[in-house]
Amino acid sequence: MSNIERFLSVTGRHNIRNVPGTVQSIERAAAILRMLAGGPGHLGLAEIARSLDLAKGTVHGILRTLQGVGFVEQDRSSGHYQLGAALLHLGTSYLDINELRSRSINWADPLAARSGEAVRIGTVLEGKVLVVHHVFRPDDTFQTLDIGTLLPLHATALGKVLLAYRTAPLPDLERFTHRTVTAPARLATDLAGVREAGWAADIEELTVGQAAVAAPIRGYGGLVVGAIGVSGLVERICDSHYRPHPRLVGYVRDAARAVSRDLGATR
Amino acid sequence: MSNIERFLSVTGRHNIRNVPGTVQSIERAAAILRMLAGGPGHLGLAEIARSLDLAKGTVHGILRTLQGVGFVEQDRSSGHYQLGAALLHLGTSYLDINELRSRSINWADPLAARSGEAVRIGTVLEGKVLVVHHVFRPDDTFQTLDIGTLLPLHATALGKVLLAYRTAPLPDLERFTHRTVTAPARLATDLAGVREAGWAADIEELTVGQAAVAAPIRGYGGLVVGAIGVSGLVERICDSHYRPHPRLVGYVRDAARAVSRDLGATR
Repeated sequence: MSNIERFLSVTGRHNIRNVPGTVQSIERAAAILRMLAGGPGHLGLAEIARSLDLAKGTVHGILRTLQGVGFVEQDRSSGHYQLGAALLHLGTSYLDINELRSRSINWADPLAARSGEAVRIGTVLEGKVLVVHHVFRPDDTFQTLDIGTLLPLHATALGKVLLAYRTAPLPDLERFTHRTVTAPARLATDLAGVREAGWAADIEELTVGQAAVAAPIRGYGGLVVGAIGVSGLVERICDSHYRPHPRLVGYVRDAARAVSRDLGATR
Repeated sequence: MSNIERFLSVTGRHNIRNVPGTVQSIERAAAILRMLAGGPGHLGLAEIARSLDLAKGTVHGILRTLQGVGFVEQDRSSGHYQLGAALLHLGTSYLDINELRSRSINWADPLAARSGEAVRIGTVLEGKVLVVHHVFRPDDTFQTLDIGTLLPLHATALGKVLLAYRTAPLPDLERFTHRTVTAPARLATDLAGVREAGWAADIEELTVGQAAVAAPIRGYGGLVVGAIGVSGLVERICDSHYRPHPRLVGYVRDAARAVSRDLGATR
């Protein structure tokens, strides 16, 4: 997980710092791919070169290479660049070998069935929660698969769990609703509460009308490597006191403990 | 799509050829990622260096860099390398901007509903079919999401459509069942038939008991950019003469034409 820690320490999104012993062109290529993933979907050469403060010729060589290996595609008419199909295969191959995900799958389905809510499993990537598994709420409504999505750490139950158990600088505390915790001192108090309780909630902090509960997944040696949680309509997740149903919290914590045991965490 | 054509022309899987004007270290990094995606999931430094015929020091620098950007993770105990979480986010970001997928989604759901079968949409990547969208068969049975999976071109209906309308060298004709077409001459005849009929079938050619029907999706200018099809149990896909039900073929061709129209193909 050391690379994830390193990501947390990177503050600027498109910041390229050449660490001694690493290959600069690969770091630049990764920065371009991150830009294409984070922006409007496609960008022109000049725009990319300007954002990264590099010469156009340098960027063009990198883009041509990325195109050659299928990581980037060029739109025929606009000449703009966008992410390429080879990344999809690499991304889903990552899912196939991801131990957190493979160990969690067996427990995520029963959690969705018991709770009647959607289940998501997350880990930390680039100062966000990366969703590595998602089980739909067990009903027939239309739902969108969230796997691969990045969620804010400070405004989600999954993220608060991950923040509470890791030593990392606080992320940018963006406001999403009037309930989002944006004051660092208030968030620190919340996170201390999460460590004490062993679980976290987000009640309309990311989306009005939505709430979530999450608990930590521990790996070998007891280190927190991820979080598992349920999310849904606030009136289903919370009781009349606007607090998560203890029964739901129990289901989530049971599932988290089961996954942790499978990952080799000792009590 | 020129990078996809280029992929088709690459015969060796881990073949690294430096094209003039491209950046060699990025090509090497991509080759390492492909190895990690295609192999047992994790590999040691020596193994990677040997496969790519590169010095260990060179490979170590590339791996450290890939680790720094989150494309690779190192297992704490074995020291082996595996794909990293950042690739998942890039892969799903590719899906978000993929026009073939976004235009197809609206037609894939109705095709699944009308046919009662699973629907998949594929494009060509590295001499295989890359599944970019998958709608489950509309029943409650357990099904695994195939998005990001690579399927053989010559043994699937989707792949035969893609082969029939593209000028590319024939892939390796691996045998999967006793019905897989492995003779190049026989496959060429089959593909001529696909071009004439406007659709392709695979009847127990990849998996015993399974059959599929697919039709071409055309993009701007009429070029075939993908394929859409249904697949399921051979006794549901085929009639008593072991041929796909004409009704199903009609549904698939209707959906393919609708997507093509949305992508700007003219008749």
